[in-house]
Amino acid sequence: MRLRVAVDAMGGDHGPEEIVRGAMAWAVDHPAVDLLLVGDEERLRPFLEDDLPAHVRLVQASESVAMEEHPAAAVRRKRDASINVAMRLVRTGEADAVVTAGHTGAAVASAILHLGRLRGVDRPALAVQMVTDRGPFVFLDIGATTDSSGLNLAQYARMGAIYSAQVLGVADPSVALLSIGEEGGKGEARVQEATKLLADSDLRFIGNVEGKDLPHHPADVVVCDASVGNVTIKFFEGVSGFIFDMLRTEFRRWPLGPVGYLFMRPGLRRMRSRFDYERLGGAPLLGVNGTVLITHGRARRRMIGYAVAAGAAAAGARIPERIAAALAPDP
Amino acid sequence: MRLRVAVDAMGGDHGPEEIVRGAMAWAVDHPAVDLLLVGDEERLRPFLEDDLPAHVRLVQASESVAMEEHPAAAVRRKRDASINVAMRLVRTGEADAVVTAGHTGAAVASAILHLGRLRGVDRPALAVQMVTDRGPFVFLDIGATTDSSGLNLAQYARMGAIYSAQVLGVADPSVALLSIGEEGGKGEARVQEATKLLADSDLRFIGNVEGKDLPHHPADVVVCDASVGNVTIKFFEGVSGFIFDMLRTEFRRWPLGPVGYLFMRPGLRRMRSRFDYERLGGAPLLGVNGTVLITHGRARRRMIGYAVAAGAAAAGARIPERIAAALAPDP
Repeated sequence: MRLRVAVDAMGGDHGPEEIVRGAMAWAVDHPAVDLLLVGDEERLRPFLEDDLPAHVRLVQASESVAMEEHPAAAVRRKRDASINVAMRLVRTGEADAVVTAGHTGAAVASAILHLGRLRGVDRPALAVQMVTDRGPFVFLDIGATTDSSGLNLAQYARMGAIYSAQVLGVADPSVALLSIGEEGGKGEARVQEATKLLADSDLRFIGNVEGKDLPHHPADVVVCDASVGNVTIKFFEGVSGFIFDMLRTEFRRWPLGPVGYLFMRPGLRRMRSRFDYERLGGAPLLGVNGTVLITHGRARRRMIGYAVAAGAAAAGARIPERIAAALAPDP
Repeated sequence: MRLRVAVDAMGGDHGPEEIVRGAMAWAVDHPAVDLLLVGDEERLRPFLEDDLPAHVRLVQASESVAMEEHPAAAVRRKRDASINVAMRLVRTGEADAVVTAGHTGAAVASAILHLGRLRGVDRPALAVQMVTDRGPFVFLDIGATTDSSGLNLAQYARMGAIYSAQVLGVADPSVALLSIGEEGGKGEARVQEATKLLADSDLRFIGNVEGKDLPHHPADVVVCDASVGNVTIKFFEGVSGFIFDMLRTEFRRWPLGPVGYLFMRPGLRRMRSRFDYERLGGAPLLGVNGTVLITHGRARRRMIGYAVAAGAAAAGARIPERIAAALAPDP
């Protein structure tokens, strides 16, 4: 069966142009996947050829959720918002995945409203594959909801473990909580509560890990509240850019620097590509009954292309079904 | 008047040896500051010369708080723990600062118990000077207490602003909350609560900043809960080491790499020294009635030397008096 990816063409910081052009560039190279561009036809048309390829279709949505709106309220009020229309395409079986660069809170609210949560999941979580010196691990929640409880964290751990096993192919993945100290008695109340729940679970729980451990693959799955995960992942982007910029500056400062830079360029390029978060495309929203991939609000067309690819891959992997199958009713 | 620094010689992951040797090496070079080594004489003696310099003194403390103990309980139970004895030296005016590499929770509990909180401060906070591409900013709380409220965050902001003005010499420092999104309506409940309190305050509050902004000096003071601050600061250590290691590996992989490495060595050294967190010595605990500097549990003798220096500098700057003077009773 052909995969069909619905793209919320109205979301994101840079307006429909970047999204339409990025998605179309990807679609032209991938005729085996159907692309559904969801948005206000009048606003999308200027960025499209008159004749769309047979595997690309426009789906009308007259409204959209703006970045500054209250997400849950806007999602409820604007029934015909592009994110809602896209989610309904998945619910009705007309699409296999939603890809959005819009407001994360709106996407989460719309996913819960239209797709529903999986049995045994109180809150969905956004997961990324975190870069380390020994391959990626699953890191969540990086931004679905804040103010999580210990029970929420324990459920994230379970979803992350299923994702690790099913998508990254890790047998019996290890699970850790990200915390302020390694000792079980340290850290937030919710981390201590989750520690108890995970210690009693059938997951391979290895305890707490600290921020310093993250670059060294401390576990196959690392769990935290979105307030911690979101700052960490964004800081990672910021700080790697910062270090590379500093490196460039140093080479300019020093009389023989440009020669050194020339010699090291291939290595630097290889390094930069490892930190290229755009290639990841975005983060799958785990715990809802459908495939939803949330990409950067700041994503431009290159990253949108990767996001559509990641959405198609996630849909092909049937992650929600796998999580649903593996989830016990109680975490 | 001579400054007198009390060093908790029993704390830390590497036992008294690293602390005694690090503090002594610093003291030998700094005869103008008195050093009080607080610990069990029998356990410290093996690492000391028979004749101590005139400005170094041992202060007996028969007990110590182990890293795995419950901090608040241990501090209450072990009256003669080295951290308690050191704090009492400050309270009685026999010392001007405490420097410790021991359990952070124990140091905070002992400081509250023996020195007390400043008027208008519900919880103390640990502050660091965060490295950026445009000079340091004050970042707190990085680990004093978790599960802070919005009111706590607002108080941290005030203390951080005083520290920024008094120690870093910033006139009318800008203050921001670290959050999951830049919009005021986003993020944790406590961040939203603090947003209201800070908007109504006389501080120059500029709103929310995100993790990606941290390397670019988003504000003079950035405030968050310890769960976020601690992971961020430790991740920063971890990730900068990770990137430098990767750089070295890349140079080894590539046939002409070693030549490039030779050319770039001075620049790399300069960069590494900017990320050398050991030089900071440690983090001052703001909000208690006395100067307390908390350094890494993992600190070895080199960093202990920097920590004693930072403790002496903090004592000289009379930060608690300045915070007390500037704090309004209501935050």
